[in-house]
Amino acid sequence: MFVNTMPRYEILSEDAMAVLDRGWRRIATEIGIEFLLDEAVEAFRAAGQQVVDGNRVILDPEFVLEQVAKAPREFDLQARNPEHSIHLGGQHMAFGAVYGCPFVRQGETRREATMDDFENLVRLSQAFPELDSPGGTICEPNDKPLDSRHLDMVYALQTLSDKPYMGSVTSGPNAEDTIAMGEILFGGREAIEATPASLSLINVNSPLRFDDRMLSALVAYAKANQATIVTPFLLMGAMSPVSIPATLAQQMAEALAGIALVQLIRPGCPVVFGSFLSNTDMQSGSPSFGTPESAIGLLCTGQIARSFGLPWRSGGGLNSSQTVDAQAAYESLMTMLPTFLAGANFVMHSAGWLEAGLVSCYEKFIVDIELLRMLKHEFTPLEIDEASLAFGAHEEVGPGGHFLGAAHTLERFRECFYRPLLTSTENFERWKSKGGLDTTARAEVIWKRTLEEYEQPPLDEAIRSELQEYVDRRRTELGD
Amino acid sequence: MFVNTMPRYEILSEDAMAVLDRGWRRIATEIGIEFLLDEAVEAFRAAGQQVVDGNRVILDPEFVLEQVAKAPREFDLQARNPEHSIHLGGQHMAFGAVYGCPFVRQGETRREATMDDFENLVRLSQAFPELDSPGGTICEPNDKPLDSRHLDMVYALQTLSDKPYMGSVTSGPNAEDTIAMGEILFGGREAIEATPASLSLINVNSPLRFDDRMLSALVAYAKANQATIVTPFLLMGAMSPVSIPATLAQQMAEALAGIALVQLIRPGCPVVFGSFLSNTDMQSGSPSFGTPESAIGLLCTGQIARSFGLPWRSGGGLNSSQTVDAQAAYESLMTMLPTFLAGANFVMHSAGWLEAGLVSCYEKFIVDIELLRMLKHEFTPLEIDEASLAFGAHEEVGPGGHFLGAAHTLERFRECFYRPLLTSTENFERWKSKGGLDTTARAEVIWKRTLEEYEQPPLDEAIRSELQEYVDRRRTELGD
Repeated sequence: MFVNTMPRYEILSEDAMAVLDRGWRRIATEIGIEFLLDEAVEAFRAAGQQVVDGNRVILDPEFVLEQVAKAPREFDLQARNPEHSIHLGGQHMAFGAVYGCPFVRQGETRREATMDDFENLVRLSQAFPELDSPGGTICEPNDKPLDSRHLDMVYALQTLSDKPYMGSVTSGPNAEDTIAMGEILFGGREAIEATPASLSLINVNSPLRFDDRMLSALVAYAKANQATIVTPFLLMGAMSPVSIPATLAQQMAEALAGIALVQLIRPGCPVVFGSFLSNTDMQSGSPSFGTPESAIGLLCTGQIARSFGLPWRSGGGLNSSQTVDAQAAYESLMTMLPTFLAGANFVMHSAGWLEAGLVSCYEKFIVDIELLRMLKHEFTPLEIDEASLAFGAHEEVGPGGHFLGAAHTLERFRECFYRPLLTSTENFERWKSKGGLDTTARAEVIWKRTLEEYEQPPLDEAIRSELQEYVDRRRTELGD
Repeated sequence: MFVNTMPRYEILSEDAMAVLDRGWRRIATEIGIEFLLDEAVEAFRAAGQQVVDGNRVILDPEFVLEQVAKAPREFDLQARNPEHSIHLGGQHMAFGAVYGCPFVRQGETRREATMDDFENLVRLSQAFPELDSPGGTICEPNDKPLDSRHLDMVYALQTLSDKPYMGSVTSGPNAEDTIAMGEILFGGREAIEATPASLSLINVNSPLRFDDRMLSALVAYAKANQATIVTPFLLMGAMSPVSIPATLAQQMAEALAGIALVQLIRPGCPVVFGSFLSNTDMQSGSPSFGTPESAIGLLCTGQIARSFGLPWRSGGGLNSSQTVDAQAAYESLMTMLPTFLAGANFVMHSAGWLEAGLVSCYEKFIVDIELLRMLKHEFTPLEIDEASLAFGAHEEVGPGGHFLGAAHTLERFRECFYRPLLTSTENFERWKSKGGLDTTARAEVIWKRTLEEYEQPPLDEAIRSELQEYVDRRRTELGD
């Protein structure tokens, strides 16, 4: 996996960090956080925190930090193929595909996502080494019954890919299903408690509220020592004030409160400081992605999460564009390049995100893979030593010469530069003669070819059929 | 103009800088630089440098650095509208439009550029405050006679815009024409010698050679104290070795040699350390832009130029794409974002560049203006103080509430976030009902509207007609 040893681009001064620190402490102590699950409220009350209005917890910041300190600074997430296990934290960066989209786009067609799409997108995630994980709800399989589709999704993630996956968070029981299926795949409860086998997204119902479904899932995962990402869901102007500092303070209060809860339930349970921070377009009222504000928020979040010694999640190929056009590309990179500058440890939505996250797009998936390939190359430190000066090449070529035929070039031309997957450098005439395909059209060729060439990773048939039996039994129990 | 007070992203260690320093010194002393103009060679010889093979100058690095130290660290470039004069160096960043393209693209049409295009693109550069200069040869006016088209271009730059411009470099006499027209526009020789009124691009015929046309122009401009940008033209694999460090060392040798020559001709003459550094696609043999290698080179170049105390030029919206598609956008931003991270002082090709620089594109111009607007916003430091925490908004809204109607939001919603020019955040149905225009189609609407609304900046009629007479007289003298 990718280890980002380049410098971090940090923009917050010590003074600014101190202001933000005062900000979250004030929110925690003067307003508090609502937890819409009794078990969570009771856990805080039992630990000496004050509860008001039934479910609002007034948090002592020192208590919160004590809990947060119990979370591991870095941890491993296992994959059924050990070569695909990942490490979260430090300089490591792991990338997962887009998550949570009700629609898909294929070329000119935009429609409701189906289970076929889900499976195809998992296959693409498996096929490209640029992705460390297919993520979880890579799209909503709308043709499957709502009550049991989480079983279909986990089964597809476990069988079509051998990379780490994200679990269901739609309820406590659904999280329990994810855990049970993890036990089957990884050889029992002990195996997944020793090293987590799932990483699941717990969104805060911002501002300052955790809802019962997400909390039930958080509690279930924490009890099984499965990793979660506690992510304030912050579109400034809607879920937080129209101020980046105010939003960062809120993000700290919310994320730290959720992380403290995880530690109350199971001290030492791996958990990630999550960030999903952008702004509302105050003209259209719509969410806006790839904005300057989101990039600034991202850079600041990295610095903040590191100050708490926590692995953190942010970034991705986010954009608001309706098609895979110039806007889709510039907004995505406007987020993804800062993601590398800030060194996010886990990056959801790294491939396929379109239309403010409503759409999983096949062509955009390929554009994003190209961006990841380029950025991983760019954020690999340059080796500068005497040999790299290639003085012999200058001696050979001399003033006014040409390096294409130089010995130094001929020895290195295959590997010396980044080799594109999607990008075209063909001259106009040649490009035109080959059909004049724009980037999106070329991306279509690539995803289709990739799906044709896809090979399902091998899985012990006994395990596969046990998973299948579990899914069938639970589906029946759920009435589908 | 934009002042970039954000941190610089520097990736070269002291050791790496020392290796590069040894690299250029070795090139300068063991190979030398060819100057294909006797006057240049004689200037070096007279200053004690060794000349071999008639025109190759073996340069003493200490002598070079002594000359370079005479160049101003920062300087002003005057515009005929004083509000548009710019400062080059330090934290200032100035942006000029694309330069040197033989073709234009308008939507689906790609054709030879004409004088009409030249004028239109100058008008667009004048209209958008994101650009500090139209640049110079914003496209080639192929319908004008080759011998005298520089006169038409300078006249258009001087009359359709009141921003600083770049002069002709196609020969010494053409540079003299630029200077003479500057004298007319700015009120005489003394006025332009006191503060330069043109900034002109002197490309090195890399590797290690300056040709006679560029040198003649350099000499003419230096004698008149007009600013130049000495730019090694480096596509790795063709004009330099397939090694970034080797290319950086070559870039230092070439740029410093040219800058030293400027100082030999006129000590203290303003001059910019230029960089145009990318790589050849070793598969297609074509130049490749927006590559990881070019971004790394750009970041390193900033650090290097600052180490010599010189204003520097690099960056732009460079790409190899044939149309204004996703690739055009991601490659452009892959260069432009590092341009801001590195704090380039003068940025050519900031708007309109397409197809490896062969094409000035109207729609791409607008895409690039949007990128500049976003990045200037992003690279404006965040103010973080108690008030920015907006605690009152949190008190007002509370857990589970919504900030859209909060007093804090209502007071700020117009100015709180970046407001896009081109980007759409409309939901799919609304976007579709408005015609379903992709970014490139929306860009077309914007450039057409901008040209319709363009107003020519006022110019004293006596000056205008003197410029016109100069152009007419010189055109006749040149036989056109």
